[in-house]
Amino acid sequence: MTQALLLKNVRPMGQDTVDVLIDAGVIQRMEPAIDVTHLDAVQILDGQNHLLLPGLVNAHAHLDKNLLGYPWHRNEMTGRSINDYVETERRVKRELGTSAEIQSAHQCRLSVASGITHIRSHIDVDAGMGLNNWEGALATKEAFKERLTMQLIAFPQGGMLVKPGSVELLEEAVKMGADGIGGLDPSTVDRDPVRHLDTVFAIADRHGVEVDIHLHEPGMLGAFSVELIAERTRVLGLQGRVTISHVFCLGMIDDAYLNRLIALLLENDIAIMSLGSGSSPFPPLKRLVEAGVTVCTGSDGIRDTWGPYNSADMLDRVRLLGYRSGFRQDADVEMLLQIATYGGTKVMGDNRYGLQVGKQADLLIFAGDSPTEAVMTQPVRSFVIKNGRVVAAQGELLDLT
Amino acid sequence: MTQALLLKNVRPMGQDTVDVLIDAGVIQRMEPAIDVTHLDAVQILDGQNHLLLPGLVNAHAHLDKNLLGYPWHRNEMTGRSINDYVETERRVKRELGTSAEIQSAHQCRLSVASGITHIRSHIDVDAGMGLNNWEGALATKEAFKERLTMQLIAFPQGGMLVKPGSVELLEEAVKMGADGIGGLDPSTVDRDPVRHLDTVFAIADRHGVEVDIHLHEPGMLGAFSVELIAERTRVLGLQGRVTISHVFCLGMIDDAYLNRLIALLLENDIAIMSLGSGSSPFPPLKRLVEAGVTVCTGSDGIRDTWGPYNSADMLDRVRLLGYRSGFRQDADVEMLLQIATYGGTKVMGDNRYGLQVGKQADLLIFAGDSPTEAVMTQPVRSFVIKNGRVVAAQGELLDLT
Repeated sequence: MTQALLLKNVRPMGQDTVDVLIDAGVIQRMEPAIDVTHLDAVQILDGQNHLLLPGLVNAHAHLDKNLLGYPWHRNEMTGRSINDYVETERRVKRELGTSAEIQSAHQCRLSVASGITHIRSHIDVDAGMGLNNWEGALATKEAFKERLTMQLIAFPQGGMLVKPGSVELLEEAVKMGADGIGGLDPSTVDRDPVRHLDTVFAIADRHGVEVDIHLHEPGMLGAFSVELIAERTRVLGLQGRVTISHVFCLGMIDDAYLNRLIALLLENDIAIMSLGSGSSPFPPLKRLVEAGVTVCTGSDGIRDTWGPYNSADMLDRVRLLGYRSGFRQDADVEMLLQIATYGGTKVMGDNRYGLQVGKQADLLIFAGDSPTEAVMTQPVRSFVIKNGRVVAAQGELLDLT
Repeated sequence: MTQALLLKNVRPMGQDTVDVLIDAGVIQRMEPAIDVTHLDAVQILDGQNHLLLPGLVNAHAHLDKNLLGYPWHRNEMTGRSINDYVETERRVKRELGTSAEIQSAHQCRLSVASGITHIRSHIDVDAGMGLNNWEGALATKEAFKERLTMQLIAFPQGGMLVKPGSVELLEEAVKMGADGIGGLDPSTVDRDPVRHLDTVFAIADRHGVEVDIHLHEPGMLGAFSVELIAERTRVLGLQGRVTISHVFCLGMIDDAYLNRLIALLLENDIAIMSLGSGSSPFPPLKRLVEAGVTVCTGSDGIRDTWGPYNSADMLDRVRLLGYRSGFRQDADVEMLLQIATYGGTKVMGDNRYGLQVGKQADLLIFAGDSPTEAVMTQPVRSFVIKNGRVVAAQGELLDLT
């Protein structure tokens, strides 16, 4: 049983100052000047009029890819295909002798310290990688279970149909405890969109897990994959359990076709995960949100062999999304912050999450006038609270006693 | 006379460890294990094997625009024209009672602490603003003269020909000590490209100052302005003294026309200042640099009424430029770092600058494996050195004694 916790003088989403009383991991009260003198044992935190936000949600990580703790990897990649990147990654990691358990734990520590309370991570599972990374990630999920709500997706990064043996390994990973099964570019990587998606959806259907497909395919080719995914979601009754990640094609097609695809996403309750993109088109986030599509975001791989820009901090992701979307108004940045919080937990199916009385106390506190200022300045997190317990303070992880 | 200074154990641009001996503001030696026992008075800094870079250069600031020290400004702008932004800015600042001297000093302090040794700033001078901001900026330039090499450009933000009285004020500002005269969208804002540019160039010619034109005009319209600027540069013999800032049009025209404009820029030694852009096309930086065009970058306005994304830190600008350019290789990020250092001092005409023996000691030192890592993680600057003196340490300004 955790101790009751009183957060004194915090400003939820930058609004007026309140106290927050937490007990049994749940937000019990949220109002000015709560009197706790009648309670026996209450831990009191001085919020110093800082901002209070619900926990940040990284709904698209690759916890097994980072090189945290190693010297900076000098990127000299000249190849362009996903396969070139996969081969480089695996060669570098073989040479370094990395462990997925150690690397994923590194990123989890950074994540908790930055106020992330939920992570969905794709983990490489294919005939090239075997179950090595998967086993390491399962160990990290267990090790961090009191600090992070975590979902693991078995992800055929190295190819599925084109790498014989991968399908069996994916199904094995699902049996070992996956929350979902991934897919990767049914046409451009796996060369057979129908058979790729039929295979992925059949495993999801057999084992009752989520589907989360990496879809980088451009323009009409990607849009066709979106249609195929929607058909399978409908036929198998997997509404609300399917996410399409990246989906750059939604930023590349004409308005009328985009409207038809949005209708398909809504009819089948399919969520979109977008990281934006530095230099290519990406889904029109505001339009999707306003249409009612569930949208989430994430870190993607950080400090890895793929590229140098991603950060473990979801406030940094929101800043980049706003920058790329051309948003200047605070209201639009706040909409993106919803994507990086409520959007993520909706995708992860956590309906106990939220900054209101009766919800699980997954929270973060830090200095700043407003949520938008926090996104831009990314201040040190004063306190991070998971399930009613303080798990990090002043940017450092705490031991849980 | 400044004291001699020995930087022990630093890695210039991440290369092998050396010591750096500085005297009379100049880098005297740069080699392993320098013995200074024969010297009388030497200040010794322990570089701890940190990175050593030449000072960062912000070649496009608006020191009079920030609201540093005030509560976060909630941006609710719905207008789109530059004029809408100017009116909002001036209304907000009137209501707050800001002083350009105080605000510009705020940004200069942040800049020095982040390792900036050179700033070129545009300062609003027009019939709406008068010389208020100009006088404040001149005071700040004087106050920071030992910490920053600063150039001030008299900039008709509120319009020039369309605001009677502005031309006379600009010329007055130049007489008061401008390093250059600015211009702003000769067609879309000032409605007469030929007369706008003739007026700006005539003032530059009469007083022997630089020209730096804000050019946001899109596509062919902006490209036409580039041609007009090149013609006037050639006729008046102002080669090497003209910069075009933003120049989004260079990212919007076809390849053949871009090549013709690059040839014009080279023939007339006209520099390009680019901040990139969050959501619109921008100049192809690598192509310009490889063609031999001088390219610099800057902060633009920070924490102001225009938009929330810009930072005083040039490492952050380099990260955004790389992100938007789709660069993944370290070599490309290093090229951008050249823009944010040597490109800027070339534009500012400082040929004493550089990370080599015989050059002025304008330097910064901070932890990290490589320049690209520094761009991505933006660590606290251990030491900042201007003209051989330590002006900031551990991210904090020092008093100069």
